Amino acid sequence: MFSKARILCPVLKQKVMSAEAAAALIPAGANVGMSGFTGAGYPKAVPNALAERIKEHNTQIDPNTGEKPFRINVWTGASTAPELDGKLAEVDGIEMRLPFQSDPICRDRINTGKMNYVDLHLSEVAPYAWSGFFGNMDVAVIEVVGIREDGSLIPSSSLGNNKVWIEQADKIILEVNYKQNARLEGMHDVYYGTALPPNRKPIMLTDPAQRIGEAYLRCDTDKVIAVVETNSPDRNSPFKPSDEVSKRIAEHILAFFEDEIKRGRLPAELLPLQSGVGNIPNAVLEALDSGPYKNLTSYTEVIQDGMLKMLKSGTLAMASATAFSLSPEGIEEFDKNIEFYRNKILLRPQDISNHPEIARRLGVIAMNGLIEADIYGNVNSTHIMGSRMMNGIGGSGDFARNGYLSIFMSPSTAKGGSISAIVPMVSHVDHTEHDVKIIVTEQGLADLRGLSPRQRALEIIDKCAHPDFKEQLRDYFERACASGRGMHTPHLLNEALSWHQRFEETGSMLA
Amino acid sequence: MFSKARILCPVLKQKVMSAEAAAALIPAGANVGMSGFTGAGYPKAVPNALAERIKEHNTQIDPNTGEKPFRINVWTGASTAPELDGKLAEVDGIEMRLPFQSDPICRDRINTGKMNYVDLHLSEVAPYAWSGFFGNMDVAVIEVVGIREDGSLIPSSSLGNNKVWIEQADKIILEVNYKQNARLEGMHDVYYGTALPPNRKPIMLTDPAQRIGEAYLRCDTDKVIAVVETNSPDRNSPFKPSDEVSKRIAEHILAFFEDEIKRGRLPAELLPLQSGVGNIPNAVLEALDSGPYKNLTSYTEVIQDGMLKMLKSGTLAMASATAFSLSPEGIEEFDKNIEFYRNKILLRPQDISNHPEIARRLGVIAMNGLIEADIYGNVNSTHIMGSRMMNGIGGSGDFARNGYLSIFMSPSTAKGGSISAIVPMVSHVDHTEHDVKIIVTEQGLADLRGLSPRQRALEIIDKCAHPDFKEQLRDYFERACASGRGMHTPHLLNEALSWHQRFEETGSMLA
Repeated sequence: MFSKARILCPVLKQKVMSAEAAAALIPAGANVGMSGFTGAGYPKAVPNALAERIKEHNTQIDPNTGEKPFRINVWTGASTAPELDGKLAEVDGIEMRLPFQSDPICRDRINTGKMNYVDLHLSEVAPYAWSGFFGNMDVAVIEVVGIREDGSLIPSSSLGNNKVWIEQADKIILEVNYKQNARLEGMHDVYYGTALPPNRKPIMLTDPAQRIGEAYLRCDTDKVIAVVETNSPDRNSPFKPSDEVSKRIAEHILAFFEDEIKRGRLPAELLPLQSGVGNIPNAVLEALDSGPYKNLTSYTEVIQDGMLKMLKSGTLAMASATAFSLSPEGIEEFDKNIEFYRNKILLRPQDISNHPEIARRLGVIAMNGLIEADIYGNVNSTHIMGSRMMNGIGGSGDFARNGYLSIFMSPSTAKGGSISAIVPMVSHVDHTEHDVKIIVTEQGLADLRGLSPRQRALEIIDKCAHPDFKEQLRDYFERACASGRGMHTPHLLNEALSWHQRFEETGSMLA
Repeated sequence: MFSKARILCPVLKQKVMSAEAAAALIPAGANVGMSGFTGAGYPKAVPNALAERIKEHNTQIDPNTGEKPFRINVWTGASTAPELDGKLAEVDGIEMRLPFQSDPICRDRINTGKMNYVDLHLSEVAPYAWSGFFGNMDVAVIEVVGIREDGSLIPSSSLGNNKVWIEQADKIILEVNYKQNARLEGMHDVYYGTALPPNRKPIMLTDPAQRIGEAYLRCDTDKVIAVVETNSPDRNSPFKPSDEVSKRIAEHILAFFEDEIKRGRLPAELLPLQSGVGNIPNAVLEALDSGPYKNLTSYTEVIQDGMLKMLKSGTLAMASATAFSLSPEGIEEFDKNIEFYRNKILLRPQDISNHPEIARRLGVIAMNGLIEADIYGNVNSTHIMGSRMMNGIGGSGDFARNGYLSIFMSPSTAKGGSISAIVPMVSHVDHTEHDVKIIVTEQGLADLRGLSPRQRALEIIDKCAHPDFKEQLRDYFERACASGRGMHTPHLLNEALSWHQRFEETGSMLA
């Protein structure tokens, strides 16, 4: 198909086959580790062929025999794309999925109870899989840029959990994607010093720019059962320009940084930035880029368009991540100027990019979105109205818990103003009051450090709530304080979740 | 008073004065850092004298002048004792208190809204104080065993945050307690390698027994404004023998360990144990001590009676902690055989004993209590019925998040069976579904690793709930699943907290 131009290892050249032939090697019920992180570096052909096979198989099941449908368990780095999550979910081919996902069909299957979803901290996936907490990994399906003569692999546009999948899986299927830029070679830093306790050693990384590993993935060629050639681009969602609300959130954060620098609590180059994916984080990056900052660094999961711009302008000296998540224009810019970016970007395995030890040591500034926060500073990042999964916790917990500052950002309202992002009690907790330091909306920024719950409530209502909901929140808080139920975290149990109920009944949280 | 026998530094000998004279040096509104952790090593005389001074001052305030009452902010290591928290709370002399406390008078002031309480992870207190997140520390009041000729200090029965308090405070008051065993000298390991980012380095600790610091606290004698001599024992709560419920919980945990070893997921020497304080953890230690285990290690906060026994029998090879918490008999045993224990116990600063980097590297097995857990695996460790503070999160979050295994333990019911420890939705979250791996009650052990929320619900109800509440929980879960609200984490918003409401209205959670 591509004359095996990127497959230099003679043994593996022999194993080139079609996606259909490779997919046929994955048994029903298998635990399958897939590459892929935020729509980058996921396998593009085998999952699709597997979905076809599953569909065909399951439609032929005689409902009277009690034969189980063909399903697999899918373990990834994080979200993938329609070709993987979407296709497999569409044919109800996924029994269990871990960790982060963001696919609409997948989400539907999770929320209608057709798929089990295990939502865990991204830093914990590799060590937990290695420890055997999820069972044995039968097959790994990994996209790579190329295969070297010795069988080692040139990683693709994400590293995610690939190192551990390749080590742990009984069998390996490789997808060599010719669409991925061959010059990605050398941009990865695969750390081979991890271990299970009691054999863990310090990870000697003290600077986001520091290399501590190897540029290639080691691979036991005996375990490789198939090599498939592909030529498809990553998901590459289009880049949206910042809206007014995001810009105001960014302004509040920049004013906060400036003040912290003045007080001597942040250095002039700040500390390594971790930034979630999406509109608001991009606005923050843009604002930083037009500010006075030079030589910032990032220690994060994902390289977005905004970071390329910051690298180009010199605002950012370098960026460490585990994956790209670029728009089509971002890809074009990156491909055109790859020589410029090559030495300024490092991709690491996600258990290193998100490692508690490193996040704590570097003092990462963690900036992540929230779905809702309550007046006491608990944050819900994952659940709509307490029950429906949105995407997942991703790395937000890794960075918020162990970083230097945890900043959670959101517009103060959603759904045209009918939902308040600030509620009396969150309907689900992903980040507890102990882990949330800063909450910011377009209305303002609440600094919760050193405050008791009641002080936090006043600060959050005052600074972050939308004016339409302020009085309603104050009213709840004051009545909770007056109830005599306990003044540490005053709540009215029969009203704590009533805003969510009201929304479900009336379409609005407004009283 | 004691002929200054333990004060060898000539300059500091000059500064010996009465507790009253020392307390007079603490100004109203001051941020005061006190030594003390789980009732060990707290100052015994100055807080009491200060409370007297506050009481006298505040009763003399003319209510018409608007003069503010004399209050201070108290920062400690963790809980102290009636002589400190109790006395100061009794006179309403505490404006803000951080972190963990367990004093009944303190608790009352917190829950009646008379005191602000900031409940944060114990590992974060020192770095956050150092970063200036809580403001400037005016005075530190630190208990020591003795003062060496060069002004360095022999630490007492806890280290807690003493290193950082001594470094950060403008002024220092020392209490030299002659009641503390002089042979504590040499049992401490004060690490001086911490820093603020971006200057943090790897902490090279890879074994609980390893020394990485110094045996003494450095001290700038110019900052010392008073030295007070005391002769009082630590709080030393009596040791309660294990009850049947605790013993059954311990049995479930031991069976689980055995199975994990068989499956190759735990080594035969387990991994370093972290164990909370109280009845159940003590029962687990006793059970381990009568089991087949040898040469275990612990990397924990507190040395309890149970650990002394395990050290004596050889079950435990060594114990690393930040404080003692012994019964009077435990103290006697320790004092009598201190030469045996000296080389088997190391006390470290609490930001090292609880450090995320070390907890993750060593792969700590975290065993902590819970107040309630919900069917989806969220744990409440701090709040009674959502509003009233019990004690605080302590180090449970440090270890549960970053350790190898997080185990949360509780009897399945409380208050004579009227409260279920397993509820539809916890009324407060300290440990999220992402951080809770094992829940165990006397009924059984639920292993939540790799399970989706609905799978967890079945496991928790089946294994952990008390028979009296099982049907009621199943009924809630089934109706939540049938509600069509979202099948990832099925909830009925109008009933989720109804068990707590029912308890408050009827005195029982039973329907």
